[in-house]
Amino acid sequence: MGVMRLGFVQVRVTDMEAAKSHYIDALGLEKTAEVDGRLYLKGWDEWDHHSVVVEPGGAGLVKMAFKVDQEEDLSELEKRIEAYGLPVRRVHRHEDYAVGEGIVTTLPSGHVLQLYHEIEVLGTRTGRLNPDPWPDDARGMAAPRIDHLLVTAENPGQFTEFFTKVLDFKISERVVPQAGSDEILGAWLYRTNTPHDIAVIPGPNGKLHHFAFWLDNWQDVLRAGDIMAKTGIPVDIGPTRHGITRGTTIYFFDPAGNRNEVFSGGYITYPDFPCITWTADELGKGIFYIQRELNDRFTTVLT
Amino acid sequence: MGVMRLGFVQVRVTDMEAAKSHYIDALGLEKTAEVDGRLYLKGWDEWDHHSVVVEPGGAGLVKMAFKVDQEEDLSELEKRIEAYGLPVRRVHRHEDYAVGEGIVTTLPSGHVLQLYHEIEVLGTRTGRLNPDPWPDDARGMAAPRIDHLLVTAENPGQFTEFFTKVLDFKISERVVPQAGSDEILGAWLYRTNTPHDIAVIPGPNGKLHHFAFWLDNWQDVLRAGDIMAKTGIPVDIGPTRHGITRGTTIYFFDPAGNRNEVFSGGYITYPDFPCITWTADELGKGIFYIQRELNDRFTTVLT
Amino acid sequence: MGVMRLGFVQVRVTDMEAAKSHYIDALGLEKTAEVDGRLYLKGWDEWDHHSVVVEPGGAGLVKMAFKVDQEEDLSELEKRIEAYGLPVRRVHRHEDYAVGEGIVTTLPSGHVLQLYHEIEVLGTRTGRLNPDPWPDDARGMAAPRIDHLLVTAENPGQFTEFFTKVLDFKISERVVPQAGSDEILGAWLYRTNTPHDIAVIPGPNGKLHHFAFWLDNWQDVLRAGDIMAKTGIPVDIGPTRHGITRGTTIYFFDPAGNRNEVFSGGYITYPDFPCITWTADELGKGIFYIQRELNDRFTTVLT
Amino acid sequence: MGVMRLGFVQVRVTDMEAAKSHYIDALGLEKTAEVDGRLYLKGWDEWDHHSVVVEPGGAGLVKMAFKVDQEEDLSELEKRIEAYGLPVRRVHRHEDYAVGEGIVTTLPSGHVLQLYHEIEVLGTRTGRLNPDPWPDDARGMAAPRIDHLLVTAENPGQFTEFFTKVLDFKISERVVPQAGSDEILGAWLYRTNTPHDIAVIPGPNGKLHHFAFWLDNWQDVLRAGDIMAKTGIPVDIGPTRHGITRGTTIYFFDPAGNRNEVFSGGYITYPDFPCITWTADELGKGIFYIQRELNDRFTTVLT
Repeated sequence: MGVMRLGFVQVRVTDMEAAKSHYIDALGLEKTAEVDGRLYLKGWDEWDHHSVVVEPGGAGLVKMAFKVDQEEDLSELEKRIEAYGLPVRRVHRHEDYAVGEGIVTTLPSGHVLQLYHEIEVLGTRTGRLNPDPWPDDARGMAAPRIDHLLVTAENPGQFTEFFTKVLDFKISERVVPQAGSDEILGAWLYRTNTPHDIAVIPGPNGKLHHFAFWLDNWQDVLRAGDIMAKTGIPVDIGPTRHGITRGTTIYFFDPAGNRNEVFSGGYITYPDFPCITWTADELGKGIFYIQRELNDRFTTVLT
Repeated sequence: MGVMRLGFVQVRVTDMEAAKSHYIDALGLEKTAEVDGRLYLKGWDEWDHHSVVVEPGGAGLVKMAFKVDQEEDLSELEKRIEAYGLPVRRVHRHEDYAVGEGIVTTLPSGHVLQLYHEIEVLGTRTGRLNPDPWPDDARGMAAPRIDHLLVTAENPGQFTEFFTKVLDFKISERVVPQAGSDEILGAWLYRTNTPHDIAVIPGPNGKLHHFAFWLDNWQDVLRAGDIMAKTGIPVDIGPTRHGITRGTTIYFFDPAGNRNEVFSGGYITYPDFPCITWTADELGKGIFYIQRELNDRFTTVLT
Repeated sequence: MGVMRLGFVQVRVTDMEAAKSHYIDALGLEKTAEVDGRLYLKGWDEWDHHSVVVEPGGAGLVKMAFKVDQEEDLSELEKRIEAYGLPVRRVHRHEDYAVGEGIVTTLPSGHVLQLYHEIEVLGTRTGRLNPDPWPDDARGMAAPRIDHLLVTAENPGQFTEFFTKVLDFKISERVVPQAGSDEILGAWLYRTNTPHDIAVIPGPNGKLHHFAFWLDNWQDVLRAGDIMAKTGIPVDIGPTRHGITRGTTIYFFDPAGNRNEVFSGGYITYPDFPCITWTADELGKGIFYIQRELNDRFTTVLT
Repeated sequence: MGVMRLGFVQVRVTDMEAAKSHYIDALGLEKTAEVDGRLYLKGWDEWDHHSVVVEPGGAGLVKMAFKVDQEEDLSELEKRIEAYGLPVRRVHRHEDYAVGEGIVTTLPSGHVLQLYHEIEVLGTRTGRLNPDPWPDDARGMAAPRIDHLLVTAENPGQFTEFFTKVLDFKISERVVPQAGSDEILGAWLYRTNTPHDIAVIPGPNGKLHHFAFWLDNWQDVLRAGDIMAKTGIPVDIGPTRHGITRGTTIYFFDPAGNRNEVFSGGYITYPDFPCITWTADELGKGIFYIQRELNDRFTTVLT
């Protein structure tokens, strides 16, 4: 009941051809449609029509969309969002290509959030009958699926409150100024059994820090780094491990400057997972466990 | 709402000292209690008091216990189970060591199923404040947590019906006699986002095929195999990959003959995951993808 | 000075088209020539013209050829082989396609051994100027190079004596009947810093047990196993670890029944490496460390 | 014949207790002796008495010592070194603890080079009879052995000439100012089948850039990085991949400021390996393949 997963992120890019080369050839996503100037993409292990939408117009996040479990979750969550004090707009069927009816709101942080239940199901190339574990025609990093996104907000505590109180997310990890404080400087939030479906750190409202693609293991993370070198993709940091989530990672940039991540590993969460707390003095270790310090870009490069 | 995860399996062994050596020294579980002749164990990454209970008395499964999300889920599921036609007994607080009130029933397959919400929380050695990704004092295979169990039933379809209709599990994969058939010869069932929390294949009622411990990666699976060789643990099959779940695996036996598994990998599921179907003629590939044939032990060695 | 490495193995197959599919599409070798009915193959990381020659005519080893360091090594080794009592034949330039002058002898075990220094150098696709670590167009298992071969001999001690005394190989590991015995039941022999370039076990004279291709890591071994399943290649055993050499492995068969191996890992050897001894009662563990027993095929299926 | 391998490096540290904690507890080397204020260390997979000698006195390289294949290689190489114009001093037996007679010279680059044949052999804990693939009591990063060292010289071409002409090393890779140039700005040199046993880059004479320990795989490199974070070891860069050698790596510092490396992977070399050339404009990619740029510390932090 309620939010089931991160469905898709919609981002702006400066150059659609460069974006195709990046997301299709290097990351290995499949193009599922190109309609009205927008590019629709999915990972090889995703069944729904798309998990990434790319459109021209600069850089940054147009919106983030979560898929809900049941059609009726939409009305229930619409009520909750309105009760929280935010206006909700109904999105009609196919207003988004291949996506059913939904609701959309703008968060106090300025991010546009959409919820939907229906989306065209395309299936995967390995299929549903006696499938092989991976497809023969993988390209590039061969990212199987989207994993999560990280955004910035002037008030991360408020952002967290919305996701936990209204959308029933749980907090896996949080950053506080010092031990004993409950002031949220950053929060990692989940609805699934992963360490995070979305996270928030302090920064300007409305900005995207990164969105991440899952890879199956640390060897694939290395291979992804090799492909970044081969194809000239700018690397931000990595390969390394996060303290927060325990995941292994490379941050890198798409040709428009949007930060991407390949992410693998991390623990399993459940609704009773006890929130892990990081104090600000250990944040370097929390973000980049091996290096134990943030690079300047981490807090300043946003789109 | 409802079942949150596989909480613990309770098994019989012939020799408690041998079991300690196996589960504590080789698998690397922590002993959290030894009370009334029973041994309570948990993985290093589990917060609850135990995920395995070992007791003297031969071999086989005493019961399997699932943790539910909310206390009130117990009454709701009690009603559903009774409506399904099975008698339910209330388990009082601390009837099971460290476990709160619960309900228990015997399935038509003869397996004892317990549901509970409350259990003592011991936490982990890495803790909740600026934690390291793994503890310093890992032993043996250092299994972080239990993952799933597989049982046999004379009527796997009925078993599957109970878990899906009464407990809201979903089917990730199933085996049918041939394409187009809906007769369930085996089913892999999930409540979490993993490929399975429990599975069933045809066989005598009341029997255990195996219970499995998670490992983080394929390298750890190799290391586990090395430790089996070093410590003289009988290996059934592996390291290999399952077609069903895509997981990597070694099957092996505890000193009483109960089959264990170390398991890593597999895809992510959600409530809308489309059920994958295997036809009986491809079952060899489904179970052991690389070998593409079952060994005799797979269907005959049960406890 | 002397033998530098295993240069190439020449094997017979029943069906050349099936062999192409196996060695080129599945193993990922490159076809470098097809002349007079013979197929010449090399791995993507090999600089010389070929490391495998395939010809029609059943199954089994036509010959094994080692490359020597200096042209003058040929005369020196010719003398030594003749002094050992074996007739030597001079191979003239291009008697073997792309290969220079050499010498050939038939060992007491019935295996044909060729030594050569000159061979056409084709280079690699990553090249010698600012190279990437791996090529973009890898196919299948993408085996970078040949690693070693294992043959059978009625008198493994004699075989070992030839390689150590005449060709200056060292013994990394050997099997003896029991501790204290010096009777060689099997020997692993090296000229490079690897655990073995060639090995011998008891069996009929003139037979091939397997020849092996290097893979860079255990993850690639799993991937190779997946490709065997996808392409229908018969698997003998694995993925597993050898006790002898510590390497990880899958044994499998080409369409003619010749056994291949993918092999990764193992320790480094030097001329002063102390010979490791396995006693016959521990041979199961020596060959298949995790399973700790030989399958029937290990000693009976030869070509 | 000639140099067999890098035998040991002897380095100065500021604090012997801190060095013990670093090299024994964190890197996992074994202490084999502590005599006259010097600490003798070896990896768990090394048979000889030591591969690292640590002594008090600041930081930097006291000397590097290579083991030769035969006792008579010492006289032969003594002659060659003298013919090259360098004075050679005979080192008498046990002048170095546990080491036999040898020769020592000071290179034009100011580095002290020792050659020896005899050294006490301690063996390994896995032993020579039916050994397990790794010991039970591994500590920390559990480095099995030393791999190579990198030094700086004002004239890298001259340094390279000495190692190739006098000691018969081969060049696996070199850096030149631009394509077509033969001016050596850096060289990677091997006697074994590894990509390098020693390397040189431009910099002050007599300085140490780093010495490296082998790890078996990329997963172990990550684990080493985790241990650096846990134990507070300063990390220079990594985990990443080198373009040159293809190896995976983390650079880090011992408590005295000497740079260490954990290194895994890389290709196999032979005497006929064709030298790979990097042009200065691609050096960033050559050193840190994924990041494609040098950090400042790479060229400035030396001991």
